Amino acid sequence: MKVLALAGGVGGAKLAAGLAQTLPPADLIVVVNTGDDFQHFGLRISPDLDTVCYTLAGLANPDTGWGRAGESWTVMEAVSLLGGPSWFQLGDRDLGTHLERTRRLQEGQPLSQITRHFCQAWGVLPTVLPMSDDPVATMVHTAQGVLPFQEYFVHLRCEPQVTGFHFEGLHQARPAPGVLEAIQQADLVVICPSNPWVSIAPIVELPGIKPALQGLPVVAISPIIAGQAVKGPAAKMYRELGIQPSAAAVAAHYGSQIDGGLLSGFVIDTQDAAQAQLIASAGLAVLVTETLMLDAAGRRRLAGKVLEFVNKLPASGVVIS
Amino acid sequence: MKVLALAGGVGGAKLAAGLAQTLPPADLIVVVNTGDDFQHFGLRISPDLDTVCYTLAGLANPDTGWGRAGESWTVMEAVSLLGGPSWFQLGDRDLGTHLERTRRLQEGQPLSQITRHFCQAWGVLPTVLPMSDDPVATMVHTAQGVLPFQEYFVHLRCEPQVTGFHFEGLHQARPAPGVLEAIQQADLVVICPSNPWVSIAPIVELPGIKPALQGLPVVAISPIIAGQAVKGPAAKMYRELGIQPSAAAVAAHYGSQIDGGLLSGFVIDTQDAAQAQLIASAGLAVLVTETLMLDAAGRRRLAGKVLEFVNKLPASGVVIS
Repeated sequence: MKVLALAGGVGGAKLAAGLAQTLPPADLIVVVNTGDDFQHFGLRISPDLDTVCYTLAGLANPDTGWGRAGESWTVMEAVSLLGGPSWFQLGDRDLGTHLERTRRLQEGQPLSQITRHFCQAWGVLPTVLPMSDDPVATMVHTAQGVLPFQEYFVHLRCEPQVTGFHFEGLHQARPAPGVLEAIQQADLVVICPSNPWVSIAPIVELPGIKPALQGLPVVAISPIIAGQAVKGPAAKMYRELGIQPSAAAVAAHYGSQIDGGLLSGFVIDTQDAAQAQLIASAGLAVLVTETLMLDAAGRRRLAGKVLEFVNKLPASGVVIS
Repeated sequence: MKVLALAGGVGGAKLAAGLAQTLPPADLIVVVNTGDDFQHFGLRISPDLDTVCYTLAGLANPDTGWGRAGESWTVMEAVSLLGGPSWFQLGDRDLGTHLERTRRLQEGQPLSQITRHFCQAWGVLPTVLPMSDDPVATMVHTAQGVLPFQEYFVHLRCEPQVTGFHFEGLHQARPAPGVLEAIQQADLVVICPSNPWVSIAPIVELPGIKPALQGLPVVAISPIIAGQAVKGPAAKMYRELGIQPSAAAVAAHYGSQIDGGLLSGFVIDTQDAAQAQLIASAGLAVLVTETLMLDAAGRRRLAGKVLEFVNKLPASGVVIS
């Protein structure tokens, strides 16, 4: 089964790692959000892409989910001593990635080619594709004005009240080479438990993606469990946008293919089992299972459950597993 | 006595440190070559400026003369693993400088302001000025073509045969704020034992510098001792340009103010005492003394000798001290 996973940062990286432990490398392609990429200290930083690659390579910091294991912070200490900004933490090993990516971009290499090269160097076997080689910048509309994503997310710790989003450059951007082909060849598209507003939306709103997904098995895993985001501001965003955060709200947000939405199936946590029938009533197949990925076994388990579910995907209705 | 020192990299930094140990901080201004500045990994690197500042701050690596003491190399190891270039060695602490300088430049701060700020943070008491806030790029003409300075100097280890030099942007560049004022207020200008072709020439060829130096006591210390450069390619450059490298050749290269040249005095090593009369015959006061700066005491000693020499500078003739 050829699987295409759409992923943002930490949650997406975890499920991607679970899929990578379950599928032959040739059968998994992970397409990663680059809407939160930014320039800092003159360097191009691709936080989601790096989180996914580090996680797949086994290089990620298991405590934070982002950054690298066994990291040192010598450069940032030197920067801080000079009064430079320390709100975005850049570890020494991680900086090696940003330096070399920046150098290659300035040489004219596209991000997708650089990512392929980095994955080879790090021993990442599945294919990882940035969603686009073109610049797309997620902008967060807030009560404090329109903020670049990392300014909102890291610098201001998601504190400003969100009123909306836009994605600069989105309509001029093309999916990276291989992305549309991967969708065409996919037997299953997995929307990882990433933030629907700022991790998944930039990918699926790229020109050509939504039409290509129509008619394919597309299964999303809810990033909201018991009304809370496992990590990050997804639940807070729903609330501030006037929507009660819940698995059902995420399902409604993505929508069923029957109604022109994205999904054919949806995966919710056992804690949200009471919402299963409501979600299924929109024409979705619903899997109820444990979705928290607390360790490598949890990632593998969820990946296996999702693949098993899709192998016998009902047109709609609830599967508890 | 207000002293203005013109400096390139390691040799210049050492004498500047000797002067800093000898003069009150308010009486010393060091103007540093920026012709060998370049962009690498998207970062702005100012090797001579950093060498001078690190040396004055006591942060320099005493073994290499460049880079920082107790340096670690985590970032470059990560870059190398990704197949990135390692020919220009960037230590972790040193990278902190490049990141923060690049960030401030992109914010629109001029290099001279950034340098002042860095010097405050590092506890450097004398004033250090980049020669210019405008871009000047030393280009080395060689048998292998015209090469950017660091490409010639570090990447190709000074191997290509030199046929000449030019300085891109020089005629549009202005001396940094404070440089011409410092010359006007100087009782003495010291040209440090730096490479005349690529460290001192970019500074003195800047518009307005040479006229401002005329009539001032300007004393250079020969970077050539016994026909050899203490460090770097100066002697090799003289040879390849058809000039036998010697202290006398450097004195002739700079020229006496009597003939429209730069110098009123010249300092040579005791090993070159036999050339003193020849150099003096061009109308220069010549000091013969030990010029090798093997340690902090050697730097202080040479600085003291130069200041003492200038305090009773003869119109010409030889002083042995």
